[in-house]
Parts: sequence; structure tokens; C-alpha cells
Amino acid sequence: MSIKKNIAILGSTGSIGTQALEVISEQPDMFQVEVLTANKNSELLIKQAIKHKPNTVVIVDDKQYSYVNSKLKNLDIKVFSGNDALSQVVEMSSVDLVLTALVGYAGLKPTINAIKSKKDIALANKEVLVVAGEMITKMAKKNNVNILPVDSEHSAIFQCLTGEYMNPIEKIILTASGGPFRGFSKDKLRKVSKKDALKHPNWEMGQKITIDSATMMNKGLEVIEAKWLFNLDAKQIEVVVHPESIIHSLVCFEDGSMKAQLGLPDMKCPIQYAFSYPKRLKNNHKRFNFSDYPTLNFEKPDTTVFECLKLSYESMVVGGNAPCVLNAANEIAVQAFLDEKINFLKIPKIVSSCLEKTNFVPNPTYNDYVSTDEEVRKLAKDFI
Amino acid sequence: MSIKKNIAILGSTGSIGTQALEVISEQPDMFQVEVLTANKNSELLIKQAIKHKPNTVVIVDDKQYSYVNSKLKNLDIKVFSGNDALSQVVEMSSVDLVLTALVGYAGLKPTINAIKSKKDIALANKEVLVVAGEMITKMAKKNNVNILPVDSEHSAIFQCLTGEYMNPIEKIILTASGGPFRGFSKDKLRKVSKKDALKHPNWEMGQKITIDSATMMNKGLEVIEAKWLFNLDAKQIEVVVHPESIIHSLVCFEDGSMKAQLGLPDMKCPIQYAFSYPKRLKNNHKRFNFSDYPTLNFEKPDTTVFECLKLSYESMVVGGNAPCVLNAANEIAVQAFLDEKINFLKIPKIVSSCLEKTNFVPNPTYNDYVSTDEEVRKLAKDFI
Repeated sequence: MSIKKNIAILGSTGSIGTQALEVISEQPDMFQVEVLTANKNSELLIKQAIKHKPNTVVIVDDKQYSYVNSKLKNLDIKVFSGNDALSQVVEMSSVDLVLTALVGYAGLKPTINAIKSKKDIALANKEVLVVAGEMITKMAKKNNVNILPVDSEHSAIFQCLTGEYMNPIEKIILTASGGPFRGFSKDKLRKVSKKDALKHPNWEMGQKITIDSATMMNKGLEVIEAKWLFNLDAKQIEVVVHPESIIHSLVCFEDGSMKAQLGLPDMKCPIQYAFSYPKRLKNNHKRFNFSDYPTLNFEKPDTTVFECLKLSYESMVVGGNAPCVLNAANEIAVQAFLDEKINFLKIPKIVSSCLEKTNFVPNPTYNDYVSTDEEVRKLAKDFI
Repeated sequence: MSIKKNIAILGSTGSIGTQALEVISEQPDMFQVEVLTANKNSELLIKQAIKHKPNTVVIVDDKQYSYVNSKLKNLDIKVFSGNDALSQVVEMSSVDLVLTALVGYAGLKPTINAIKSKKDIALANKEVLVVAGEMITKMAKKNNVNILPVDSEHSAIFQCLTGEYMNPIEKIILTASGGPFRGFSKDKLRKVSKKDALKHPNWEMGQKITIDSATMMNKGLEVIEAKWLFNLDAKQIEVVVHPESIIHSLVCFEDGSMKAQLGLPDMKCPIQYAFSYPKRLKNNHKRFNFSDYPTLNFEKPDTTVFECLKLSYESMVVGGNAPCVLNAANEIAVQAFLDEKINFLKIPKIVSSCLEKTNFVPNPTYNDYVSTDEEVRKLAKDFI
């Protein structure tokens, strides 16, 4: 019997997935790859499988199944394809922890299945909590499953809460880099290009989240994610722009004392913590040093310019299926911006229009989420 | 039987003592004053006793005993005087926790007695650990006594370590305001007056600690205090100058993650935490807000100008009775500066000369500390 933690990585070829594999390689006595999944990038998936020798891989794109299978056939690695396989593979009894590093709504089904199979979740797929936070957190509680945040901000809060279980949170402050367009006016924002928007000042990330950072929708989604992870009201969640991204977030307790988690902007730290929690594992990652950052700056986010942040707060307060609408509209709008079909300011406009036009469901079931998501995607496409 | 915590405050008329009484007044359901002691300030001690109705008060100055006694005679409050009473009063069975808010070496004997009587210690008297850290921490362990730091820096580290008991510390960073002479050259420092030195930019404190902040000896003493509180080597303790005093200190763990505790510079926060640990109590203290502090700054301390900091590190590395020498020499030198008998730069000079001239005792007993302290005080006076 192995004492290593067996990890399933959903979305292993993305930014979080590849960094998670680095973390696992750095800690060979602690972690082992059990499952790798990729949407379309079969070349990288094959390379990863050859290196990490998982029990199982899933290529979601059915057309690439036989290619992947042929490349891995002598390695005693099971190969599956399709969305159903993606959802089912997390149920394997040999899996201890599932890293959900999928992008967007696609992560919902596999996350639900993993929780039902009583697997701890390292959650890098914030949209899952944005869309269905109430359902997911209830389900996790019922199944006695830990949801370990991988987003650097939520990992920061989670780390600050260690040992403070008996102490209520007064508020949390999520830090935001402000993205590439910090300080821009609305007029200036109207003219930005896809290339401009993809230049994030501090973090190397996938395209969707990089655009979300540029609109500050990412911070809005994180606000909703934080609500569910830490059981907070809208009034208890603040956002402060901190261009250096060194303080990853802060908690204020009821005695007025605040705790913050800090470090260089490096996703390997929160990934490793989610894998090793509650222990911390020694590593050689580059350390933060104040001599490289003699000044840390903080400013209020401008929600008249970055409307996505305001829309997120509003949809959170409304509740029900509103955050699901927000998320679906945003996914479609961001894709349209990446396809250069709409300009940057059209993103909040589409989200706002979808929030207006969609029927409100106060207590949505899973099927309500599915139909809201479908409906809004169509609606958003109409607006493009 | 009361569920309130009964607190003995040694040094109730000083800065920490008076703030501790405010904290107790703010939390009447949680804390109760059992003992108050003062060195000479009988007027304030009497006022405090009338308000807080302790079981016992001690006025150290024998000459004032009958005056204090006459003022409190109708109140069912026991009155004692003298240094022996100060040391013995902590042994009372009704005392749950002792706040040691005495200044300097004077706190050593009562702290030892309190630990031997198995009372938890809220330690505001850093010199006790500077002088006899090894003895005190061993004794606390043996008697199963908590030493709860009250210094804001050490409270910060202590708060960051909550729930992290299984995770080794890589290093800690103590923040320092830099005091009123931050950025001064040695030439400029030579000419500073007592009045200049007593103007601390951020904290309202007693005279001794305010001068120690101006020389940065205070930070040096805190480095030694931290070594004993958190069981660290000299290499694991860094100092960074942070003029705003908002981040009170930081811990770096072996995974590279750092935690910091923050807040407005207000000693009531660490005092309350030491009293209520591990719980935090809701209060109405003014909260920190980034809009009041849009920029936080950090710089390296200049130990060629602020030699006391360098001397502290050196005496810590040497060990034995060296920190006791450092402390005694500093107490005498600071008093001489406050009496305007020596100039500011003479303080490190006297400390350095005493460190050179005193016999080294590698494994001092309590009696060695007492004789080292006596000897160094005489020696330091000769240098003045």
C-alpha cells in the first residue's frame, strides 16, 4: 500500500495542470499522478502520460482517441475519451484527490461526481462555485469532503484561517492586480486589442482567465467563489487593487486583527498547499524578498470603468441562478472577444443584457443550472 | 465560581498596564482584575484600584504604603509594598494569568515566580527573555505554562503560527518603524536631543522603550526575544524597516508561503489576544483601512548607523550571559541619556564596551544573571 497521495488532474494540459505536474515531480515521495485529462491537446497529454505514468488518461475530443491510445498502448495506461469519461474517471477508488483545473462551466459535472465519490477537491475551477456554490458546498459538507482552494486569493484566505476555526470572520479583502488596464478610462478601454488584454502584468495564465483579469470579471467571480468557500455575505467581501500581487489576500477577524498571506506570484505555492494541506512541504521555489519590492501599493477598484466587478456583486446579492447567468454570458462574450468579434467594452454589456433578459430562478436545481446555462449561451450569442 | 479570567497586571500604571485595563473594561464578561502593581505612581494605582476592585495591590515603593493603604482601606483590597511582595503576589491561587508589563530586568524575578506557580504569562517585558531566555522557556515548558507575547511583533508571529504547529518555520521577519531617526547619518545622530528621541512616529510608549526604538536596540531585544519564543537561530530572524508599522511581522514557512499579521499600531490588539487566546473577542477598536495607507514601504535597516541592532545580533550569537550584559548596559545607558548625561551615540558605545569587558559565562544560572547584571550596571556607570 502506498502512502503517496494519488491525484487526478482534470485539465492537465492547461496552465494550472502543467504547474500541478511540476509540483508533483518536485515531491515524488508525497504525490503520484493517477489520472490525467485533456480537452484537445493530445500531444502534451501523451508526453505527460509517458513521464508521469498515470493509471488512466482521458482525451475529451473523441476524434483523437485512437491516436492517444496507440501512443500509450505499451505503457499499461488506460485511455478513454469523451465528456462522460471525464466525469466518471474521478470516481475511481484509487483516486485520493481531484484537481479541477478545467475552464468554466465544463467543470461542474465532474466536480459533482468527485464530491459524490467522497474525493477531496483541489478547486482551480472557480466557475463551479460561481454557478452552483450553494449546491456544491452543501454536497461537500454532506459527503465530508474538503474543498481546497487553488486560486491564490482563496488559498491565501484559507491559509490565514488555519487554526482560527472558532473565530468568526469580520471581513475578507481580496487583492487584485488590476490587470493590464489598471487606471484606464472607459474611453481608453474601448480601444484595447486582444493582444493588449492578453498581457497580464504578474501572472502567466490561460487565455480565458487572462481576459477575465483584464475586465476584472475574474475578481468578481472570485468574490462569489469566496462567498461560498468561506460562508460570507456580500458586505463581508472587499476588493483592493494591489498592482504588485504580493499580498494574495487578507482576513480581518472580529478583534480587528488582520492576517495576510504573501509571496511571489507563483501558482505552484497554492497548488502544493492544496495537495499537502494541512502540512507544508519544503521546496526550492523562489522566495519573496522585500528588497525586490520596497513598496507595496493599494487602491480602490474603479467599478464605473470595470463594470464586470459591479455586475458580479449584483448577481451575488440577487442569488439564485443570477451568477450562473453572469458566468455563461461572460464565457460567450470572452470567447467572442478572443475571436475578435466584439470589442472589449461589449463584454460587460453582453453580461448585463443577459442578466436583464433571463428568467430568475430563486432556488435552482442542477437541471435549472443546466438549462439556464444553455439558454444564456444562446442569448449571449444573439447579442454578439 | 467565576468563568472570567482573573488577571494580575504587574506594572499597571505604565503604558501597557493602562491599555490592558482598557481592554479588561471593554470585555467585562471575560476578564477581571485580580492584582495591580505599580512602582511609584500611587495616585494612578489608587484610581485604578477604586475602579477595577482587585483583590490585591502592590506599591513597590515602601514609603508610599500607608498612603495607598489609607485610600483603599474601605474597599476590601489587600495592600502590600516592596519588591518581595511584587514577586510573591503572582503566586496567588486566584490568579489565572499574569501580564508582565514591568520595564527591564526588574521583571525577571516575578516572571520566574509566576511560571513556577503555573500561571500563564502575557509577556510585555521583553528584557526577561533577553536576559534569561533559555532558563525561562525551559521553565515554562516544564511547568506547562503558555508564554503569550504582547509585543506587537511577537504577537504577530504568534498569530501567524496558529494552526501551523506541524510546519517548521523557515524564517521570520520582524518589522521596525525605524523610529524618529530613520535615514539619519551617524553625524546627524550625534546631535539629537532627548526630546527628539522621545518623539516616536507611530507608537505611544514608555520612555525606556521609546529611546530603545530610536537606537533600534528595541528591535535588537525583540530579535533575541523572538529567538527564545519561537526557537530560532540568528539566521532565521530578519529585520525590515517598515515606517508605517501596519504589517506587524511576518513568518515564512518551508514551502515559501508567508503569513503576516496587520493592523493599526494599537497595543490593545495584542494585549487582548494574549488575554483571550486562542479565541478572539469582538471589539470596537478602530480598524485598518487601505484607503488611509495606500502605500506600504520597506527598507533594510542600516546597522552601521544603528549599531545597537548589530550588537544585539552579536550578543545573541555569542549566547551565555552576553545578552544579559547587553541589556544591563543598555538600561544604564538609556537612563543616562534620559538624564541628559550622555549623548545619543554614547549608548551603543557603552553597550559595546561592557560586552568587551565583562567575563563570559557560557551556561549561566539564575545567580550568574544576577551577578552579571549587577557587575555590568557598575561598569556601565563607570563609562558614563
